[in-house]
Amino acid sequence: MNIYEKRVKDIQKILKVEKLDAMVVTRPFELGFLTGFHLEGYMLLISRLDARAYLPKMLLEHFRSKVDFVKAFAPDSIMDEVISTINSCKLRKTAFEPETETYPRGVFWRKKGLIERKGLTAALRKIKEGAEIEAVRKSCAIASRAFKIMKPRIKPGRTEISICLEIEDIMQSFGAKGPSFNIIIGSGPNSALPHHETSARTVKNNEPVLVDFGCLCDFYCSDITRAFFIGRPPAEYLKIYSIVKKAQEKAVARVRSGVRAKDIDKTARDCISDAGYGQYFIHGTGHGIGLEIHEAPSLNSKSEDILKEGMTVTVEPGIYLPGKFGVRIEDSVLVKKTGCEILT
Amino acid sequence: MNIYEKRVKDIQKILKVEKLDAMVVTRPFELGFLTGFHLEGYMLLISRLDARAYLPKMLLEHFRSKVDFVKAFAPDSIMDEVISTINSCKLRKTAFEPETETYPRGVFWRKKGLIERKGLTAALRKIKEGAEIEAVRKSCAIASRAFKIMKPRIKPGRTEISICLEIEDIMQSFGAKGPSFNIIIGSGPNSALPHHETSARTVKNNEPVLVDFGCLCDFYCSDITRAFFIGRPPAEYLKIYSIVKKAQEKAVARVRSGVRAKDIDKTARDCISDAGYGQYFIHGTGHGIGLEIHEAPSLNSKSEDILKEGMTVTVEPGIYLPGKFGVRIEDSVLVKKTGCEILT
Repeated sequence: MNIYEKRVKDIQKILKVEKLDAMVVTRPFELGFLTGFHLEGYMLLISRLDARAYLPKMLLEHFRSKVDFVKAFAPDSIMDEVISTINSCKLRKTAFEPETETYPRGVFWRKKGLIERKGLTAALRKIKEGAEIEAVRKSCAIASRAFKIMKPRIKPGRTEISICLEIEDIMQSFGAKGPSFNIIIGSGPNSALPHHETSARTVKNNEPVLVDFGCLCDFYCSDITRAFFIGRPPAEYLKIYSIVKKAQEKAVARVRSGVRAKDIDKTARDCISDAGYGQYFIHGTGHGIGLEIHEAPSLNSKSEDILKEGMTVTVEPGIYLPGKFGVRIEDSVLVKKTGCEILT
Repeated sequence: MNIYEKRVKDIQKILKVEKLDAMVVTRPFELGFLTGFHLEGYMLLISRLDARAYLPKMLLEHFRSKVDFVKAFAPDSIMDEVISTINSCKLRKTAFEPETETYPRGVFWRKKGLIERKGLTAALRKIKEGAEIEAVRKSCAIASRAFKIMKPRIKPGRTEISICLEIEDIMQSFGAKGPSFNIIIGSGPNSALPHHETSARTVKNNEPVLVDFGCLCDFYCSDITRAFFIGRPPAEYLKIYSIVKKAQEKAVARVRSGVRAKDIDKTARDCISDAGYGQYFIHGTGHGIGLEIHEAPSLNSKSEDILKEGMTVTVEPGIYLPGKFGVRIEDSVLVKKTGCEILT
């Protein structure tokens, strides 16, 4: 039994526990997670007994060549065929996951009698297993290694974009498929914009740089941020940097199975607030990484998540002084029983 | 008045015609189209009189520095604040676009009394204007130019992935931001899978290759497919190639303002069916390209779209013989009054 077959079996166990007859799966991330077939445009209907895929004709042969434990069909109308199977197999309690569904599809499912049930696949996706951990670990290792090579090449006179393209190239040369998100190279005051769009601005001497990057490797994401100063850093930069550094280290030190995600956020936030910069820490402390660059759990003040062994999350506090500079320090970590492993 | 301000004004005209007081916009493609600010996580509320943006705190300063004609706010709860403004400004008929909305958000809007109205921003996005046409043209030119350089380098012994990475590099060196989708390099029997996932397979002598690629340039996509044979093509390949070539040329020749999109599909489909290969043409003939790689209009047998001047679409019939080979020929074209301009 391969890893995907096992995941579908896990979903079937969840269906039983949740007293559901079946569920539909429609979003590429969940589809790829359950079958290993990562393309979009198809759907799964998983009952307690079997799993069926409904595909456009152009994907049928392709799917069959890759996935042998799911029955595959290419009907004229995929959604009508799903409903017709639900009816003919008497799958009376069939669920869809509202949080992964589009509005038109969700409305269609409701009209046809399907019920909403949150977090069915998310429960599996949050906790990473063997091959997934290896993929995140590899993705993080490639990004880290690429930055070591890249950092000395970030010099005055280079544009943000040229730095971005080169780090992408280095990661690809180490086996990454591509970046895991739009890489942020923020130089000078641009470093104060947490989601700055990498621009044609030239890095100057005696100014800060913020680099937020990561890659995709075997479909899994890495995410790292490094902040540093080109030239001789002024006292204010050193001060802000050391506050963020301390906040990040304290937050990372608290990560272990059983801790509430919001307490990790509180640790970092208290540290920055105590230093007098609370109003400049304008985002959450972290997020899960996996097939998606932002996925469950959330590490912010409103999070209801509890960290568990096998979760892979980022820890990334920051301070942003508008018009001046910003510092964010981010690592990706693997949650363990008694602590965490820093992957980056 | 810049191009984005004009687009918001155009939306306000549509609101008037549609007898709406306001609309919410929530998806990054529509948000970027209307403001030039392409990040996710924020929302717009456009009334007939003004436009407001509701952002997470981390994006507020960034948004303000880029967009000066929209009032920007960073409330604690974005969706609650949107509703509160709708109520306090008495925007009784406020619409959301169901086709761009997630299920949880759509349900929320409905509960709060918003109404569904399809195609409000799509009406503007379908027809490209000056700067958009230039961006698509540039994106297509870069992809075409890259392929000219790349084609002689596609030789026996190279892996599909290495070809993919090199064409990406070349496009980036010409100013592209990255690929506009997962580039497909299908060698040998892989060419028979329309959405083959580029693999570590090595290209061999005397076999077909299919290359489906494009880039992102100034946020706009290009899309091209070329099929060819390494070595001496057998008669069957030449026959299939010439059928697809003829179908593609005939379909392109029919493209002009006023023609029904489904008639372009019929032209290509009839050509391939008449040659006896109808069952192997397993997808639609084309799609719009713009900010998204697949957007309105659709060029397939069920499409209700009418082509209009300023639309940018692909024309890409194909024949796929399972386990043997596939041929698809795709160009991106700009619809004009009396014909079309081939951009690739």
